[in-house]
Amino acid sequence: MPGLVGIDLGGTSIRAAVASGPTAYSEPVARCPTPAASGPEAVIAACADAARQAARGTPDGIAIGIPGPLDPEEGIVFAAPHLPGFEGLPARKLLSEAAGCPVAIHNDSNLAGYAEWVAGMGRGTRSFVFVIVGTGIGGAVIVEGNLHVGVAGTAAEVGHVPCSLDGPRCGQGHLGCLEGIASGTGIARRAAAALVAGEDSRLRGMASPDASVIAKAARAGDPLAIRLYAEAGRALGRSFGGLINILGPEAIATGGGVASHFDLLEGALRQGMAEIAFEVPLRHCRVGRAQLGSEAGLVGAVAWAVKKFGAPG
Amino acid sequence: MPGLVGIDLGGTSIRAAVASGPTAYSEPVARCPTPAASGPEAVIAACADAARQAARGTPDGIAIGIPGPLDPEEGIVFAAPHLPGFEGLPARKLLSEAAGCPVAIHNDSNLAGYAEWVAGMGRGTRSFVFVIVGTGIGGAVIVEGNLHVGVAGTAAEVGHVPCSLDGPRCGQGHLGCLEGIASGTGIARRAAAALVAGEDSRLRGMASPDASVIAKAARAGDPLAIRLYAEAGRALGRSFGGLINILGPEAIATGGGVASHFDLLEGALRQGMAEIAFEVPLRHCRVGRAQLGSEAGLVGAVAWAVKKFGAPG
Repeated sequence: MPGLVGIDLGGTSIRAAVASGPTAYSEPVARCPTPAASGPEAVIAACADAARQAARGTPDGIAIGIPGPLDPEEGIVFAAPHLPGFEGLPARKLLSEAAGCPVAIHNDSNLAGYAEWVAGMGRGTRSFVFVIVGTGIGGAVIVEGNLHVGVAGTAAEVGHVPCSLDGPRCGQGHLGCLEGIASGTGIARRAAAALVAGEDSRLRGMASPDASVIAKAARAGDPLAIRLYAEAGRALGRSFGGLINILGPEAIATGGGVASHFDLLEGALRQGMAEIAFEVPLRHCRVGRAQLGSEAGLVGAVAWAVKKFGAPG
Repeated sequence: MPGLVGIDLGGTSIRAAVASGPTAYSEPVARCPTPAASGPEAVIAACADAARQAARGTPDGIAIGIPGPLDPEEGIVFAAPHLPGFEGLPARKLLSEAAGCPVAIHNDSNLAGYAEWVAGMGRGTRSFVFVIVGTGIGGAVIVEGNLHVGVAGTAAEVGHVPCSLDGPRCGQGHLGCLEGIASGTGIARRAAAALVAGEDSRLRGMASPDASVIAKAARAGDPLAIRLYAEAGRALGRSFGGLINILGPEAIATGGGVASHFDLLEGALRQGMAEIAFEVPLRHCRVGRAQLGSEAGLVGAVAWAVKKFGAPG
């Protein structure tokens, strides 16, 4: 039965599913590896195949989450670090031609946050912020019941806000933004720098410990690892405080690999929020873990397909 | 002729004017000192008198800008540092009773930003941010054609966003927020600290130089004064970069006493923006000086009265 399809396009895998309701999809989910190395035409063709497989025919409409900044209005990708050749790609038009149906494209973190708003921790709110803390930091901002995209379509880059005047730089070159300190990459880089500086830690001797290894060390009582997570938590909390002061959301949900170690972050995160947020809007804002986990991207794409192209067939 | 009245309530003076159009008012403007020391009842009575004087009778409706965080829906002031006794005051109800007409209350910076949006640098935009840099830092956020107030009514506190992990504290106790570095008070405090630390400057020997004295010293080539303004400009620019990444506004306007020295800020401000902002939304965002100057508060109050209570009579 054809229908509305959501696609979660990642750097390594593609998942597609057909909507069974406004925020739900039917099993089975169509999956395939992302042929990123074969170029954008191959990736678009694989997405179209997965969509047809999910819909068992030509879909009525597709919404796809793409990992990079893009213009959802124009349907153009500005950049996608994990997908060579996607820079400047008219992805909406190409996928629409390949799949034979209308297509909506959106940033993957925006759609994950949309899912968390319609079916997760943000359900029932009018204003909501989603912050995904993994290798990088992305998110989504819902203002007065709308997924906010801003004038260029690239808003809600909640990881790239000022944090420290001195640095470090994040992977995208911004000096002293949140992502450089609190992302998985940021935590790993700060660990490496501390080890080079001679700090004592059980991380010493490990080959490039990543954020998940560092979390294990923190749980085993390693003081450096504990401090790295506390610093990430405080930086996150301060940025949440800034969001609370600027936007006054009803809730902020945080997901992603680093945020899965919420217990290592939470104390410092709440301290950081209190350092910056005014008491009244802080009291009105629930802050906690996202509820949909790795499902968020696909749920968001399906929900967006339903929103853009009507009720499921 | 009765009509719709806007009131700009400051810590030292009250100004009231009657609307002559959606964003304009008639002369003469009714003015009186704010009887702040006599308590909130006296201040409310003075506002009602000024409104009646402006309207030459009982107004059809009043919008008033109040210097402090408040809930425009409930009509309650949370705090007003320059108006003793206003904390928790049901200002809307009290002024409505005193003036005999419906009243809307709003934060004064929000209304100044609203004015700058409807009649100043933000005219014609759908998304706009106003940042007023004076003794403190406040502002307004317009998202998709709406003055955004957030869940508690206190949003758009653009001065209280993370800037530096180490401090200083702003006047409201937030550690390392923008206001502590870039406000007039922040600039003056940093000057005092630098002088105590022994830094050479023509400011030495002056009794508590304020931001405007420091601006004069910067124009005369004083290296400390130049640096203090550059640091304020960079911090402002970085915060604008964060706003651009989160909200993607079409324009950001900055007004207020410190921003009147825009030439001393601008180089570092544009550098700071580039440190944080993504290139695409940065290119789509005009950044510059607010156009309405000290008129913004009264224009905003009048325009808000027209918006809330219909076309002028």
